Amino acid sequence: MKQSLLFVPTLKEAPKDAEVKSHKLMARAGLIKQTSAGVYTYLPLAHRVIRNIETIIREELDKRGCSEMLMPALQPRDLWDESGRWDLYGPELMRLKDRKERDFCLGPTHEEIVTHAVRDYINSYKKLPLALYQIQTKFRDEMRPRFGLMRGREFIMKDLYTFHENQEDLDRWYQSMKEAYTEIFRRSGLETRIVSSDTGQIGGDEADEFMVMSEVGEDTISYCMSCSYAANQEFSGLSDGDVCPKCGGTIRTAKGIEVGNIFKLGTKYSESMNALFTSREGKREPVIMGCYGIGISRTLMASVEQHSTEDALVWPKELTPFDLHVVPVNYRDDALIEKVDGLVRSLEKDYRVLLDDRDERAGVKFKDADLIGVPYRMVIGKDFSNGKIEFLNRYNDHKEVLDLEDLAETLKSLNI
Amino acid sequence: MKQSLLFVPTLKEAPKDAEVKSHKLMARAGLIKQTSAGVYTYLPLAHRVIRNIETIIREELDKRGCSEMLMPALQPRDLWDESGRWDLYGPELMRLKDRKERDFCLGPTHEEIVTHAVRDYINSYKKLPLALYQIQTKFRDEMRPRFGLMRGREFIMKDLYTFHENQEDLDRWYQSMKEAYTEIFRRSGLETRIVSSDTGQIGGDEADEFMVMSEVGEDTISYCMSCSYAANQEFSGLSDGDVCPKCGGTIRTAKGIEVGNIFKLGTKYSESMNALFTSREGKREPVIMGCYGIGISRTLMASVEQHSTEDALVWPKELTPFDLHVVPVNYRDDALIEKVDGLVRSLEKDYRVLLDDRDERAGVKFKDADLIGVPYRMVIGKDFSNGKIEFLNRYNDHKEVLDLEDLAETLKSLNI
Repeated sequence: MKQSLLFVPTLKEAPKDAEVKSHKLMARAGLIKQTSAGVYTYLPLAHRVIRNIETIIREELDKRGCSEMLMPALQPRDLWDESGRWDLYGPELMRLKDRKERDFCLGPTHEEIVTHAVRDYINSYKKLPLALYQIQTKFRDEMRPRFGLMRGREFIMKDLYTFHENQEDLDRWYQSMKEAYTEIFRRSGLETRIVSSDTGQIGGDEADEFMVMSEVGEDTISYCMSCSYAANQEFSGLSDGDVCPKCGGTIRTAKGIEVGNIFKLGTKYSESMNALFTSREGKREPVIMGCYGIGISRTLMASVEQHSTEDALVWPKELTPFDLHVVPVNYRDDALIEKVDGLVRSLEKDYRVLLDDRDERAGVKFKDADLIGVPYRMVIGKDFSNGKIEFLNRYNDHKEVLDLEDLAETLKSLNI
Repeated sequence: MKQSLLFVPTLKEAPKDAEVKSHKLMARAGLIKQTSAGVYTYLPLAHRVIRNIETIIREELDKRGCSEMLMPALQPRDLWDESGRWDLYGPELMRLKDRKERDFCLGPTHEEIVTHAVRDYINSYKKLPLALYQIQTKFRDEMRPRFGLMRGREFIMKDLYTFHENQEDLDRWYQSMKEAYTEIFRRSGLETRIVSSDTGQIGGDEADEFMVMSEVGEDTISYCMSCSYAANQEFSGLSDGDVCPKCGGTIRTAKGIEVGNIFKLGTKYSESMNALFTSREGKREPVIMGCYGIGISRTLMASVEQHSTEDALVWPKELTPFDLHVVPVNYRDDALIEKVDGLVRSLEKDYRVLLDDRDERAGVKFKDADLIGVPYRMVIGKDFSNGKIEFLNRYNDHKEVLDLEDLAETLKSLNI
């Protein structure tokens, strides 16, 4: 892909309202563009990363028996009256009227819509379980949108809803989804901690949150450095540096960005919305539900937060928008252009290649490349005519001059 | 994929408000579920078809130098005031206020947002051309939503915007996009006609519409059966069956469903919104724009319209949600289940397989399979124990009993 056509509007300075590192960097790197407070365009680079996150999510959910669909953003008031949420939800719910003065809202979540979609179908235990998800744009009118994609008013979520004939089946799926989430965030190159709130009540209230530890999160989390779990209640008496009585690990206190949550809904929506099925015993019962969210735009931002310094970003392998960044210091002379294009074409057979074909000074190109964050960079300079390029591995900052004939081998060894 | 987990809520009867064949069939086949007038959930089967259409679109646009991003649905009034469209647009524009009483609309198109996104960047002819697209949910408050996905209030579109330094460059890209569209609809298995309105004016007004001929479209089109083009003006004096003076072809009059349109915008938005660049001659000029839409949910519906009878559907190869439908007449006995699952697992290495694992009568399964529309069906009946299955090619209704050992060869020969 030619960089001139990709549309990467890098900036010298971050917008004034950008308070945190990732927000500043995302604006400067040409990843996002604000159109109003808390509302962003995902520019082509960010869009490619989002698609990579989505692919990982789909793979992990599909192989566990989940099925993808797409529900509408426009939700009619009557369904929200059924669940009782129309009156309970505060000003965060974006409400509007259609041309006939009927009330609608823009969905912040889809419990009502999904319950409506399945309730005629799940008339018998034979139709259960079901696990339905979507990747979709959501709306929440935050009082004070801030931190870029972290507290936005329009954002991308994966939301999943499961339906079960009994508590045991919900427990089984809940555990399976917890494993899916762990795998999704691991594959996305994010270090997460699970904050559990296991109240043990039947039919609801059990929940786990997946938190990315960072300097800027909205919640403060105490976690044990030896366990994979963080539990606010359990460690609430302890502070940073204390030793944990249970396992001898050290307590660390940090901010967390919530990127996912899973929740045993129980029968809250099925009872109020009359989603009943006939059980094996022939009784009419409300279906038992679970819900499971991942903030996709937040995951993008959390990844930037974890993989950047003030002036540079390096994407983890599974999220990177491109594998290789080919940066010719000079891309003017016809013969040279032909040779560079030939090299890129051959690399594109195996890799996703970004070619900086712009007529810019080398300094500008390198600075942009640091912001864009492709992990492997090939600089094409004077020695290209002698069959040599400069190869930079940005994960370890290792730089070497390579013979073109060794390039394929080097790339192979990197396991891109 | 197991059909019990896919969520295909087939219906015996179409909803009463469904007037046209495709709408009736889409509801009965468990493809869509209405939540309010003109607002639908795309159920898992439809979602898979939509993803196939999207893949074709992305491939054809990306290889022609277009770049994908994602713009917001929530659009602030100030940008619409700049273009003048806030006052011009009628009640079809869905408007709302945020918690601070600021005006927003839900985007029916994105000219304002994309012009805002690029105008600081395209300061020089060196940054041009650009071709940016998105696949996104759009909103239009239709006076009378009807015909299912054909005239909905929330729908999926691909919209593309191109930016050029001069008319020649716009013309070149316009031609390239016209070819892309022709290829997209051909690959989607749709027969389309292009309705041109070439006014020849510089800087705008040239447009082409891509129409699927059908019994139910919103526009009446006269077209020549020998040419690939349809031109309302040119053939306006002629009626069905007339011979066309130009080429000797016969005129046919039919309804058309508009699935795509391409349009030379010129400088309408760049002038009003101040999107200027410095030309090669050093002058500040408004950038010249083109816009190009494809109704993705409409394309789905048009495909159903073209590939169905009242009670059955057969998806074209590139859009089908699955390649093979495995229908065991009995899926109860453990040994049999194990054998069927083994067969499905081996088929899944090469094909997308739907397994009807439901505990339903054979008649119900076959009726549902006719509605679901997978092109090749394998019925597993009594003779399975003798290594035989019944294979149905739904494109030509050819049915044969196959030895399991010949299955691989048969599938190969079908070029799935």
